[in-house]
Formats: sequence, structure tokens, C-alpha cells
Amino acid sequence: MVNKSHYSFNETIHVPYGVMAEWTARIFRAEGLSRQDADLVADTLVAADARGVYSHGVLRISLYTERIEKGCVAVDAQPELIVSSGATGVVDGHNAMGQTIGAFAMQTAIAKAREFGVSFVTVRGSNHYGTCAYYTMMALAENMVGFSSSIGGGNLMAPWGGTDARIGNNPFSIAIPAMHRYPVVLDMAQSVVAKGKLVMATKTKTPIPDTWAFGTDGLPTTDAEEGIRGTIRPIAEYKGYGLAVMVGFLSSLISNAAIGSTLKDVYEDFSGGLNKGQMFAAVDISRMGDVAAFKTRVDREIDFIKDSPKAPGVEEIYLPGEPEARAWEASLVNGIEYPAEVIREVQGISERLNVAVPEGVSSRMV
Amino acid sequence: MVNKSHYSFNETIHVPYGVMAEWTARIFRAEGLSRQDADLVADTLVAADARGVYSHGVLRISLYTERIEKGCVAVDAQPELIVSSGATGVVDGHNAMGQTIGAFAMQTAIAKAREFGVSFVTVRGSNHYGTCAYYTMMALAENMVGFSSSIGGGNLMAPWGGTDARIGNNPFSIAIPAMHRYPVVLDMAQSVVAKGKLVMATKTKTPIPDTWAFGTDGLPTTDAEEGIRGTIRPIAEYKGYGLAVMVGFLSSLISNAAIGSTLKDVYEDFSGGLNKGQMFAAVDISRMGDVAAFKTRVDREIDFIKDSPKAPGVEEIYLPGEPEARAWEASLVNGIEYPAEVIREVQGISERLNVAVPEGVSSRMV
Repeated sequence: MVNKSHYSFNETIHVPYGVMAEWTARIFRAEGLSRQDADLVADTLVAADARGVYSHGVLRISLYTERIEKGCVAVDAQPELIVSSGATGVVDGHNAMGQTIGAFAMQTAIAKAREFGVSFVTVRGSNHYGTCAYYTMMALAENMVGFSSSIGGGNLMAPWGGTDARIGNNPFSIAIPAMHRYPVVLDMAQSVVAKGKLVMATKTKTPIPDTWAFGTDGLPTTDAEEGIRGTIRPIAEYKGYGLAVMVGFLSSLISNAAIGSTLKDVYEDFSGGLNKGQMFAAVDISRMGDVAAFKTRVDREIDFIKDSPKAPGVEEIYLPGEPEARAWEASLVNGIEYPAEVIREVQGISERLNVAVPEGVSSRMV
Repeated sequence: MVNKSHYSFNETIHVPYGVMAEWTARIFRAEGLSRQDADLVADTLVAADARGVYSHGVLRISLYTERIEKGCVAVDAQPELIVSSGATGVVDGHNAMGQTIGAFAMQTAIAKAREFGVSFVTVRGSNHYGTCAYYTMMALAENMVGFSSSIGGGNLMAPWGGTDARIGNNPFSIAIPAMHRYPVVLDMAQSVVAKGKLVMATKTKTPIPDTWAFGTDGLPTTDAEEGIRGTIRPIAEYKGYGLAVMVGFLSSLISNAAIGSTLKDVYEDFSGGLNKGQMFAAVDISRMGDVAAFKTRVDREIDFIKDSPKAPGVEEIYLPGEPEARAWEASLVNGIEYPAEVIREVQGISERLNVAVPEGVSSRMV
């Protein structure tokens, strides 16, 4: 599930988690974020890298700083719980950093689940919040199941049978605690590939598989440029389209956030806040039975799944989130393995903002 | 999303909803169900047919009656809310009919959502409960979002990379109310096809697409018999596998119901109760804002999606659940369009149980 294949790892550099997180936080402090908010944003990005999810790591610093500098994000704003009714709530993010809003909303969901057993919190006025799994995994230490979803970064996919991009890839995550095994953490978008993979293919002039995208005529294409003009294919045909619709509606329509007809593209529209919608929920296992017994059953099923005989060439069977958990452990021991080009990009932003590049990094990036 | 293509519609018969429901209920009363339970089971089956979901309609009478007659189901049992803690609950189905349990658990979830804003109810000791959508749609009239999931009928799919069937196709449904449009109702299993489609292909000696199943060696196969010995393919590769894992864990592990290592196959194991696990949840929209405004936003996005330009050969774009809602309307006007072979099978069961075949049916089935 970790796919490093679209990055060049010919030249890599290992950076300790703490060094990368502190450096990233200093960059966001230079952009006007409070120490607390900068630490949080840095943690979400560097945690994604440490888990091997480079697409949502420090690669995003470039986009985030551009949006901040163009005044699209209110870096000193704080989210507000504008509706709190029983186990439900609505958070207005007031256009703060998506991470600040996400952590606040998930903490609200966890507190409400502790009080009522389950919770449901919707958000409007938010921005890109990083990986969904960052928030669902906050529930694990509480012995809760965590849920989160977000409207995607823009309309990328057509309705099934359509030709116009009217639906986001609308990711969601579910995290379930285990006893001695890694927690089971699913985090998935509803498109076959990220648009970035098509962009990469246009740069290398490589044809794309005809299962990735549709052209403007709604027919499968192997031409990446035509795919970018057209739409990205949903997973599992009409089922992925259906999932994207439901996740989008749950993320944005209750809180009255942007979606479909009102959604601005995070990469292309710098006219102001995005009014992104997100959803957060938690379920307190302890309300329904013994937590240790539950987590032991989770371990039992994990072992049953992993013990399956394997197909030719398969060394090991993984549960959702297991490759990321293993990458995390390796990153904490060895430092995070970064493609040098990623570090070079962060270095460029850092120097432009007069933020010192950590000694151990600059000396190896000559 | 309605696929009639795998039934022969050369010979069809239209049966009014009420006639079919009353006939089906009489069959289940003859099997020992109370009037109320028989009416409920009949309604779930005939509603599925009326919505065009024939795989979960009266075709199942044969399986249900066989399981009842072999003592696998406790037809006079009633489900019990054994844990009720805040907005959560655990229902022990006591091996009653799955429909009796499902309706009770969903009513519990709706009542708890009315009290707390959101709810989460898990079930053990259940049986096959029909379509997930039957239960999620119960939430619509309450202006709630409904959620339900179930452990599948047996282990059909391998873990991604594995060769042994250790995971069910674990279906789930989400239902969202609209204002003037059809409600948006997703109901999906995590396998590319139902096992029944492979069985059908063995009967007609037709090769199957290599995207449907893996052989016992874990490699794609076009041989339906090899696919049946092997495993059914999950949708969207590892994403569908991941979804099936999460849905299974949420359906069965909190309530300590059967799953994976402990799951009996509904079609093959007649040794007793199945101890199936299911999950039910509801979210009360009114807690978080004006319901009419929410439903108007749902309509707005439905219209935006349906108004997309269309790919060649596509006449109309449908939302999840829309083909079923249209089939339902047509069925209420014209009667349900049944393949004659389906009615013949019900007729056979009916005559064996000395249950009168409705006049209008028997006269046309000579």
C-alpha cells in the first residue's frame, strides 16, 4: 500500500523525525502561525512522511505556504464549536489551517464519544487538513474507533457515465485499535490514482494505463494530457463513484461547506478560503463490552488474515495501515528516508523565508 | 446499477406488491413465524424485488425456508437489547430471523439518535438480514442519515496477496434524505461480483472475465469452476480488501459475532445458528442545522451531478439508489416484473407447504 515507485529514490537522505518536525514548524512560524499551530501542522506532515505517505508530507509545504502568503488562509484564526447538541456538533473553522481545525474537531468528537459513547462532528470553513488517518488515529489511544472524511481538493471525477469533473476523490479513514498487533487503519480516496500521477506522466511523456482516466469524451484514454483535461476514474466503477458521492455529502452538506457546485480547487484557486467540509466521529468500545476482549478478537482476526497462504511472489500479507506502521517504526529508528529532491524543495522555501536549514541537513545537501 | 441481464426475462409475470407480500408472508407463517415477523420478512424480500434487487428478493425464500426447516433459525425468538449505554447498544439476536433483529436494532439506533443526535448499535446472534438498504432507509422518514453493515454470507475473498477465502464481501449501506429528489442510497458489497454469477457461468459453460476471481493459485482465472474453488476478487484491489476488513470488524468484532475464523457459510453450513454480526447507526440532521436547508443542498448537488455532460451512449446519470427508486415506483404502478422461473420456484415451495398460490398468479403460471 506504500508506493514509493513514483518518486526517484536514487538519491536519498535520512532525516531524524524531530529534526524534520522542528524545521517544518519553524517554516510555518515564519509564515505567522503560533508555535502550537506550527508544531501541529509540522507533525501532520512529517508523520505522513514517516509513514511512507509522501504525497501528504512536507511536499505540501510549498502549497500551504503559497496559500498562506496569498492570504487564502487565516493563520491566526481558531476553530469554534458553533453547534453542540448531545453527541453531535458543528465546527466553523473560520478559515484557519486545516490541521488546527481537524485536531480540534477530532478532540471534540473524542470528548463527546467519552460522554455519550459515539459522536458525530461536522466542519465547515476548513482547509486542506493532511491525511485523514492523522485524525482517526487520535482515537486509538482512547480505545475508540475513529472516523474522518473530507471533501477532496477539487472536482476530479465525473459522475459515472458523465464527462465533466463534478466530484472530488473525497477521502476517508477508519482506525480500529488492536491489542498486540498494529492498529488497523484504512485511509483511502475514491479515485484510481491521484491527479499527480497523470502530471508526472506528462513530464516523462509516458502513456498511462487506460484504467486511470477518461478523456473529455468520457472514454478511457492512455494520453495523460487528455486525462488531465478529462476526468480521473473512480475506483470500482459506479461503486467508487457512489462512495465519493456519499463521503462528499457527509463531509460537506450537513455543515454547509463547499462541495461539487461550490468547490474551489486547492491547487488552482487562490481567491480566498476554500470552505472545505470534514467529518469526525468516534465510537467508545468500552461502552459495549470489555475493551481487552475486543482488542484480542481484533488480534485474532489479524492473525487469521495474515496466515492465509500467499499468491506467487507475495512475501507477506498486510492489514490496512500495516505498511505505514512499519514505515513509521523504521523512520523512528533510522530517520525518515527522503528523496533528495523533496528536501531540496523544503530547503529552497526555508532559505527564502530566512529560516535556518538544520545543520545535519544542509551539510549533506551541498 | 440495476442489472437484470443475468436473469432471463424472456418470460415474465407482473405481480402486484401486496399480492406478492401477502403470499410470501403466508409462506413464512406456515414455517412458524408470527404474523408480525412473517410480514416483516416478506416486506424486506418483496421490497428488494420491487427495487430491482432480485438477488435479495423472493429468490431467498428457498434458502430461508431450508434453514428454518433444518432448525438453524429460532423462528419464535426475539432480539434483546443486552447493553444500552448512552448512544450505543448491543443487541443479542438470539438467533431469530435476521430481519426481525435488523428492524429492532435499527429502530433502537433511530430512537437513540433522536435522544443523543447520533447512535451506534452492534448485533450478534443474527442471521441473513436481506439488503442493508432496507434498514438504512428506515432512517429517511426521520430526517436522519442511516448506516448499516453486515458480515457477509461466508468467506469469499482472500486477503490481498493471499489465496485462501478468509474475508466476506461484507456489505454496507448509507442512506441520505433529499428534499424533492430521490433519497441517495448506497448499498454495496466489497466483491467485484457475487459468487452466484460464477455459479451461473458454470451452468452455461461460459468463461468469466479475468477480473472476477482468482484461482486456487491466487492468479486471475477465466474458468468459473476454478474461480469457485479459489476466491472472488475484491473491488479496487487492496482498497476493496481494506474496506471488507473494516466493515467486517465493525459488524462483528464489537458485539463478538462470527467473522473470518469463526464464520459459517449461510449456503453450506446447516449445523445451527450463524451468529452473524451487524451494525446500525443513525445521525439526526436536525441537531446540526435546519433540515429543510440540508435537504435543499442535497437536491442542489444531485442536480449538479445529474446535469453533467454525458459519455457516448449514456442516456442519463443516476445517483446511488436512484435506479432502485425508479424501479420501485414502476413496480407499484405495474406490479413487480418477475422472471417466470422465480415465481415457479416460490410456487413450488408454496405448494409443498400447502400454502395457497394467489389466484392471479396460479392462473398465469400453467
